[in-house]
Amino acid sequence: MTDLSPRRAGGRAARREARANPLADNLRPIRPGMSGGRYQPLDVADLDRIHNAALTALEEIGLSEAPASGIRIMTDAGAILGDDGRIRFPRALVEDMLVLANRSVTLCGRDPLYDLDLSGTRVHYGTAGAAVHMVDVDTGHYRESTVQDLHDAARIADQLENIHFLQRPMVARDILDNREMDLNTIYACCAGTFKHVGVSFTEPSFVPDAFELLHLIAGGEDAWRARPFVSNSNCFVVPPMKFATESCEVMEACVRGGMPVLLLSAGQAGATAPASIAGAIVQAVAECLAGVVYVNAMAPGHPCIFGTWPFVSDLRTGAMSGGSGEQALLTAGCAQMHRYYGLCGGAAAGIADAKLPDMQAGWEQMCSNVMAGLSGLNMVYEAAGMHASLLGFCHESLILGDDLIGQALRCVRGIEVTDDDLSLEVMRATCIGGPGHYLGSDDTLNRMQRDYVYPVVGNRASPKEWVEQGKPILVDTATQRKEMILSKPARARFAPDVDAAIRSRFNIHLH
Amino acid sequence: MTDLSPRRAGGRAARREARANPLADNLRPIRPGMSGGRYQPLDVADLDRIHNAALTALEEIGLSEAPASGIRIMTDAGAILGDDGRIRFPRALVEDMLVLANRSVTLCGRDPLYDLDLSGTRVHYGTAGAAVHMVDVDTGHYRESTVQDLHDAARIADQLENIHFLQRPMVARDILDNREMDLNTIYACCAGTFKHVGVSFTEPSFVPDAFELLHLIAGGEDAWRARPFVSNSNCFVVPPMKFATESCEVMEACVRGGMPVLLLSAGQAGATAPASIAGAIVQAVAECLAGVVYVNAMAPGHPCIFGTWPFVSDLRTGAMSGGSGEQALLTAGCAQMHRYYGLCGGAAAGIADAKLPDMQAGWEQMCSNVMAGLSGLNMVYEAAGMHASLLGFCHESLILGDDLIGQALRCVRGIEVTDDDLSLEVMRATCIGGPGHYLGSDDTLNRMQRDYVYPVVGNRASPKEWVEQGKPILVDTATQRKEMILSKPARARFAPDVDAAIRSRFNIHLH
Repeated sequence: MTDLSPRRAGGRAARREARANPLADNLRPIRPGMSGGRYQPLDVADLDRIHNAALTALEEIGLSEAPASGIRIMTDAGAILGDDGRIRFPRALVEDMLVLANRSVTLCGRDPLYDLDLSGTRVHYGTAGAAVHMVDVDTGHYRESTVQDLHDAARIADQLENIHFLQRPMVARDILDNREMDLNTIYACCAGTFKHVGVSFTEPSFVPDAFELLHLIAGGEDAWRARPFVSNSNCFVVPPMKFATESCEVMEACVRGGMPVLLLSAGQAGATAPASIAGAIVQAVAECLAGVVYVNAMAPGHPCIFGTWPFVSDLRTGAMSGGSGEQALLTAGCAQMHRYYGLCGGAAAGIADAKLPDMQAGWEQMCSNVMAGLSGLNMVYEAAGMHASLLGFCHESLILGDDLIGQALRCVRGIEVTDDDLSLEVMRATCIGGPGHYLGSDDTLNRMQRDYVYPVVGNRASPKEWVEQGKPILVDTATQRKEMILSKPARARFAPDVDAAIRSRFNIHLH
Repeated sequence: MTDLSPRRAGGRAARREARANPLADNLRPIRPGMSGGRYQPLDVADLDRIHNAALTALEEIGLSEAPASGIRIMTDAGAILGDDGRIRFPRALVEDMLVLANRSVTLCGRDPLYDLDLSGTRVHYGTAGAAVHMVDVDTGHYRESTVQDLHDAARIADQLENIHFLQRPMVARDILDNREMDLNTIYACCAGTFKHVGVSFTEPSFVPDAFELLHLIAGGEDAWRARPFVSNSNCFVVPPMKFATESCEVMEACVRGGMPVLLLSAGQAGATAPASIAGAIVQAVAECLAGVVYVNAMAPGHPCIFGTWPFVSDLRTGAMSGGSGEQALLTAGCAQMHRYYGLCGGAAAGIADAKLPDMQAGWEQMCSNVMAGLSGLNMVYEAAGMHASLLGFCHESLILGDDLIGQALRCVRGIEVTDDDLSLEVMRATCIGGPGHYLGSDDTLNRMQRDYVYPVVGNRASPKEWVEQGKPILVDTATQRKEMILSKPARARFAPDVDAAIRSRFNIHLH
């Protein structure tokens, strides 16, 4: 080893040594918030037509079942309540509210290191959903998910470089009281990760308690309002074209409390949205535009995410199919509509219909994840861990998803074409009087860390090496990583005094 | 069941019945040759720069080691042989030869039903490679591949809707004589499928025998030349920037015999090509342009495929990594260069580094396959069945790849935005006085077969149904489908008299 001392090996060894150290953030091959947008499933004319159809739908069909408070807010702004109870939106109103909408939302982490800048086509991947089962990869058993499972998911996500936020991916079914469940969901997520957290609330009356909890975690209301590290995932509509009355009231409470809101329209093409992909996008856009009017009429510029989340039905059964090519197109098309409006947007990708983290899960998760990234979706929700069309969450799959998303992010980064990248001089020096190959050249070594993404769990060994490794099974390797992560103390747990204050005020189920 | 008689159920039942019949080809949700191109990893300016760098490389660096015949062909056309043995190509020569190049190659199947039209951005997926192992999915054992394995792969590919051609994916290692191996490869592939077949030849002296065999299969030389159903996958360069002397001689013989040629440049970024993605594309483009000059100087307009196949190294080991995001970018970038030239192009995608058809294999294969399709690559080679970075081929994975590619093709088809697709009237009828959902509507039922792609082996059941099915393991289901396909007689076998004539002339190993 003395041969490698800096004195003997000179500049090359120094460079090798530098490469062994972590790279500065701007030199890492991939990172959160890289810009996508090279994939554009829709023409400019298509975008206009979808926009116009959505405006027509808002003007002529409108939405029913707004709460009294919402009717007041929206009609005060210029919306029209019909005799049929539907609120209709003049085009000019929608256009005016789009001008007021916040176009540069930052979603804060508890640690600013994890802040997410949702401007432009910047792409972030994370979890989401409301799975009711945990998937046991050894037995294929789907059991009810618990608050400990949720906390563990948060702890795992906290350690995964390519999981940029944690929206609550599963329901703590061991907590039967809905108020306690909502509050414990916040606790379990925030105690597990410093990354941005998304949650939902079952009833509007639970929101004040949630803010009390969040103020305790933040160190007071001002600190919370300065850097809100939790957003509200809000299904404010029940497609087609109906407000979800209680969720709208939750949304109003969240807006007042300074919480960013994900305006989530989760229609299902062929069931609660038109079976046509374009039609499902039209309806989702219309519904989310209604949300933009609602929120900006209430609090202009309040941080919102334009959450067009149309899902897909398998039309043979009517059941959801999140892993289909149709789903990938829906999500990418929505991302392009977000760009059309210049709004911060989110949609669902990475869902597997597969029950286990098998080959089907891999292709399903990659298809929609890479297309979402290439289309420049700001927030790619449900990007990892989701099985059985959102019914099951799997920790091993979350870990594998980190690798999968790493490769998707490499694709989002794309191809640089500077003079240096064109490599003419490297080619010349290699071919004419050079070694005739590029192995070990300075150019190759320099690009090794800056340009290439390596899997953590994925295996690239040759068959011979793989046999020597004992033919490791991918899922087993993921289980080992899971156990390693969970064997260490949770770094995001709250300071003892804060934790004591929380526990004396609320019934915290997590030990 | 009498309730469903046409008389009682009227037009709806008739429509349901029509849906149960196979759709006319132009109504199927996906088919070979759909047009991609919505994903463009490179700017127009990037394309120009890559083109110019490739021309500079050809003009200033050139290629060494052309055979004597090739030197004559290329220098007669205007290329310059340097004292260093390298042939350099003036820009005007390359541009002139690009004008002569064939831009509308059709690759024939033995049955015209499977003809592939490589114009524009039409996308086709198929196998390719030279794997030396078969993967046993039960044990993870990598054993030497045989001519029977190859024939079985052809029979399986013949039955898979989304595998559009069969380029020889593995080597018949049980045939030790190279001439016999090459001839038996043709036999085993063509006797297994009516789809277009690609093969390679070890030595130029084997080519006359191959043509004799092909003429026997075709029913004479005229019939062969009218519809050549086999193309030559030809590694005519050994990157960087060297001709492969013998392969060039093979190429010349194939051109003379009327066989379409895949001009294949298979550099490996970071080993035999620059580590930069753009640089690897520059080199591949330069090498393939040299091939375009070579072939068109010899036989203007001869059907060629511009085969920029840059691979990726895992720079930690120098070993190949076909499953990386970098690979997906390389392939998509190359597809865009094919469009730039308006040439029929091919590249590699769908390669797994994973040793087994596991989740890693799924994400690796989908990433490059869907991006290749979205970028409008005419021929997506190695799209299914390939593991361990091309070392192992797997029948089960080929079958799973058919499902995977089906979803990728759905993405290639994209989003239609006609007035009908926008679905405003469907929304209106559903929301105002309608059922409030789209389940079972005529629009939904009509789109069920026309717009949606369903997996054959992939499982979309709910967890409950999946348990009732006995928790089927994906790979086991693929094995069942494999056994079902292989239990039936091979439909593509030759007529008895033809077969007898072939066997009396050549030593055919397949029973």
